[in-house]
Amino acid sequence: MSRKDSAGRPPLRVAVLGSGKGSNCQSIIEAIEAGRLNVRIVCVISDVENAFILERARRRGIPAFYLSAAPFKTKLDGAAELRYVETLREHGAEVIALAGFMRMIKQGLLAAFPNRILNIHPALLPAFPGMESWRQALDYGAKVAGCTVHFVDAGMDTGPIIVQRAVPVLDGDTAETLHARIQTEERIAYPEALRLLSEGSLAIEGRRVRLGNSPYSFPCCFQSVAISIL
Amino acid sequence: MSRKDSAGRPPLRVAVLGSGKGSNCQSIIEAIEAGRLNVRIVCVISDVENAFILERARRRGIPAFYLSAAPFKTKLDGAAELRYVETLREHGAEVIALAGFMRMIKQGLLAAFPNRILNIHPALLPAFPGMESWRQALDYGAKVAGCTVHFVDAGMDTGPIIVQRAVPVLDGDTAETLHARIQTEERIAYPEALRLLSEGSLAIEGRRVRLGNSPYSFPCCFQSVAISIL
Repeated sequence: MSRKDSAGRPPLRVAVLGSGKGSNCQSIIEAIEAGRLNVRIVCVISDVENAFILERARRRGIPAFYLSAAPFKTKLDGAAELRYVETLREHGAEVIALAGFMRMIKQGLLAAFPNRILNIHPALLPAFPGMESWRQALDYGAKVAGCTVHFVDAGMDTGPIIVQRAVPVLDGDTAETLHARIQTEERIAYPEALRLLSEGSLAIEGRRVRLGNSPYSFPCCFQSVAISIL
Repeated sequence: MSRKDSAGRPPLRVAVLGSGKGSNCQSIIEAIEAGRLNVRIVCVISDVENAFILERARRRGIPAFYLSAAPFKTKLDGAAELRYVETLREHGAEVIALAGFMRMIKQGLLAAFPNRILNIHPALLPAFPGMESWRQALDYGAKVAGCTVHFVDAGMDTGPIIVQRAVPVLDGDTAETLHARIQTEERIAYPEALRLLSEGSLAIEGRRVRLGNSPYSFPCCFQSVAISIL
């Protein structure tokens, strides 16, 4: 695990926090295994004891922990927050990637990892923050939807944006088909954001994140969808 | 002016309302002249006496009128609204296309043309409603911006969406370069929305606009931008 990239940088040490299946964690693992991402996942932590994301990590030999966040239901705070910070530090995490972690991040963790916590949201923020945003987009009648990888701040889905990828909303879409199309882009967007971060080229200026000189891929999937439209 | 399209429909009779240069009016005119749009512009009306949109129309032989909207500054209401409705009816307008018309549309005009007033907005609504939305998108740090053609309702930039087109926001963008990139997509989006309307295939269900069987173009410009990114 002492691999370095072509610029001689050691892998970025990333911890993944999730509450569910961990499909975004999986996309990060796959990008690493394919040699496209100079990242090492140092641990996976879940607030849900039997979350599949833990099983997914253990199968790969990645340290995986259930850490209760009780007594709180919707946030990570108090003694639980301290336990998380401690575990993250013990494993030498430099960056935290939230992957379906269903709790608000509070000041303790934010202060411990300033501008080093990432989240992915299934909408083109600032449109459709909050829950089931693909359904929000469909009900609103948006014709373009997408996903956003952003730095986490004290707000709900409000931090500086690193990567966005757009998808079309089609006439026949249901919440499920639109969600699936967005998830396909999420699997590209999260590794992309981590790659940009690992290459050290990101710069935050106010709310704007400059990507630097790294080449990046098209922020949309319209090429692959074209076949079904035309 | 009695041309019909291949399905035998007479041209859709569209009135254009604008307060400025009329660049979106120009894109509609060009699409008509190129035979891509089965529309006849029956008149152009402006609330600004020397607006270039009027000159643009007159050069093409399109009836063009300055109609004062005083004493109101930001809305079309009262006696002025009545004058507008009268002129629009005299010219047999079926649909109204707002093209940089800098006033809120009120109940009188909305009731006279229910679901027949279109507007174009330089953002992917519901993100960035209101003024200078390209600047809002840049300041927010969005990585995907765009434009929206929507039906007008009583709200500000809130009506059902017909067409959206996305553009990337690049590292070096200023308000001007991003605005220009969005305007390029506006010139495609507005004729596209009018074409869909003229073909009679649009259906409004709640907030969702179904486009029907008409083929439509990719809702983004990423293919053309690719060259400058890579």
